[in-house]
Amino acid sequence: MRDGRDDVVLAVTMGDPRGIGPEVIVKALARTDVRTRMLVVGSGAVLAAVADRLGLHPALHAFGDAPGAQLWPALLDVPGFPPDRIEPRRPDALGGRASIDYIEKAVALALAGRADAVVTAPINKEAIAAAGARCPGHTEMLAALTGAATPVMMLVNGPLRVALATTHVALRDVPGLVSVPGLLGVARVLNEGLRRFFGTPHPRIALCGLNPHCGDGGRFGDEEARLLAPAVAAAGREGIGLTGPEPADTVFVKAAAGAYDAVLALYHDQGMIPVKLAGLGAVVNVTLGLPIVRTSVGHGTAYDIAGTGRAEEDSLVAALRLGAQMARTARAAR
Amino acid sequence: MRDGRDDVVLAVTMGDPRGIGPEVIVKALARTDVRTRMLVVGSGAVLAAVADRLGLHPALHAFGDAPGAQLWPALLDVPGFPPDRIEPRRPDALGGRASIDYIEKAVALALAGRADAVVTAPINKEAIAAAGARCPGHTEMLAALTGAATPVMMLVNGPLRVALATTHVALRDVPGLVSVPGLLGVARVLNEGLRRFFGTPHPRIALCGLNPHCGDGGRFGDEEARLLAPAVAAAGREGIGLTGPEPADTVFVKAAAGAYDAVLALYHDQGMIPVKLAGLGAVVNVTLGLPIVRTSVGHGTAYDIAGTGRAEEDSLVAALRLGAQMARTARAAR
Repeated sequence: MRDGRDDVVLAVTMGDPRGIGPEVIVKALARTDVRTRMLVVGSGAVLAAVADRLGLHPALHAFGDAPGAQLWPALLDVPGFPPDRIEPRRPDALGGRASIDYIEKAVALALAGRADAVVTAPINKEAIAAAGARCPGHTEMLAALTGAATPVMMLVNGPLRVALATTHVALRDVPGLVSVPGLLGVARVLNEGLRRFFGTPHPRIALCGLNPHCGDGGRFGDEEARLLAPAVAAAGREGIGLTGPEPADTVFVKAAAGAYDAVLALYHDQGMIPVKLAGLGAVVNVTLGLPIVRTSVGHGTAYDIAGTGRAEEDSLVAALRLGAQMARTARAAR
Repeated sequence: MRDGRDDVVLAVTMGDPRGIGPEVIVKALARTDVRTRMLVVGSGAVLAAVADRLGLHPALHAFGDAPGAQLWPALLDVPGFPPDRIEPRRPDALGGRASIDYIEKAVALALAGRADAVVTAPINKEAIAAAGARCPGHTEMLAALTGAATPVMMLVNGPLRVALATTHVALRDVPGLVSVPGLLGVARVLNEGLRRFFGTPHPRIALCGLNPHCGDGGRFGDEEARLLAPAVAAAGREGIGLTGPEPADTVFVKAAAGAYDAVLALYHDQGMIPVKLAGLGAVVNVTLGLPIVRTSVGHGTAYDIAGTGRAEEDSLVAALRLGAQMARTARAAR
């Protein structure tokens, strides 16, 4: 810690060059209250252009092969995206290809032990699809790159942690995707993730009901009795502290007050609505179930404000802090 | 206003005698900061027994036929429920029958112009079903008693107002219940209710998407393009300020910040999760689309704590205040 910085290294992907990723990274680098060693993985030319426009001058040191001599913050320069092609701000194959490159390189560094966590800036699903990606988004790509079978998306807003059993699927498909083995798999990953990365030896996890008032004894919906209660029982037999199902309209109030270490929501909006509304701070997106630590900003590329200087770095700073904390917790347990 | 009280009269139903309704009413009567004329519709013997146990002594005047001479607060005593049968605290036909009696009498008073609003304490769905009610709950019963075709449930928590397009149905049935005519009918009632009872001449109403990220251009779910956008367009042609559909995980953040007068949610938990979590105050349940003003506490009978003295009257007080305010607004517009 010769440089006065935390010795955890975070590989920070630049995200889509045309989005607000480069800007929030430059702003986070300028903040003196962020002490973690940042290894930015992206285009040095784009970052320099964005920094110039903002009137900021972050000193980024080239990332080298000799760890002892490394100066921080560092840059792994990934050329390929021409800085004069930042405009127009829209999804296309060029930005998508660059986004993928940064992720692949950051994951390789983490798998090789040269970074303790990967923190990702926003990419665009349409752009990576245009670049030929077979994965619809970050989570699936990270799972494919690391060989993870059950990646679990968890949102963190201060003390409120919400994991999702299903993510980007139509609401009408959700009931058919709920199953005892599926929920058990997610509960295992969530339980292990809370133990390993959040220092919670015996995580208390609340399972949301699918139907209003948990179906009110079967009057409207039977998934609670048919699938959710059996999943809770099966988890209990494995020593996982999963409880419920609980009515979704009250469980988040209890969780925000500290009653649970995490809530397991059954579908995207059931979990995302309370996490975004909780009003506790910036939302961080965490992927559990990977062999590496991964956090992400909670926002998208925001092409509409990219280049205006109006993007706020709060979510990235929260993602950096949580990534560093998770990496330190995992390291301390080893 | 010779008694120093607001001249709006609120008919307050006692709710299930075995629940916390009598207790929160007695506590609200004891509060000096509630200035509205309360006409409690319930069992005088039960209220007296509960007040005795709490050490409170509200002066309830018999409700008479000569309005000029009426003293407040008043009681319309509805005998029938024996106070020695309060225990055990559970749903049964006796409590259900009493619950229904109070509602019928309060609605009759409001329809006759002797009360300006009906404020309801909690009832239990199982108890009223045991008593032979054909309506599953308050909202349907109020609609039947007043001949209303499209009752709309709206939850209010401070500035956040959320109306529900569907209520107590299984989640798997929700997509099939969303229709252009159905949404248009709810939007009309909501628009008219906000104009008449909330003093908003041109209500701004946001419609929630059904699918995550509003289906992301049809990638997961097509209801946004197929049903929701046409409903918004049809409402616009009638001069209703309905906008969207908007992603449900961000629209409540904007609404809580004042961007909308109300949010129209498509299903129970989509609206109830943010309303309960908003942390702004007590939740009040409002029924729009009736010929009378109706507000309600946001909680249930809570049999488990009834009789312990631990029930809090905040939600009832909020329902009383909102009911009085809605009645005054409607009166001022006449």
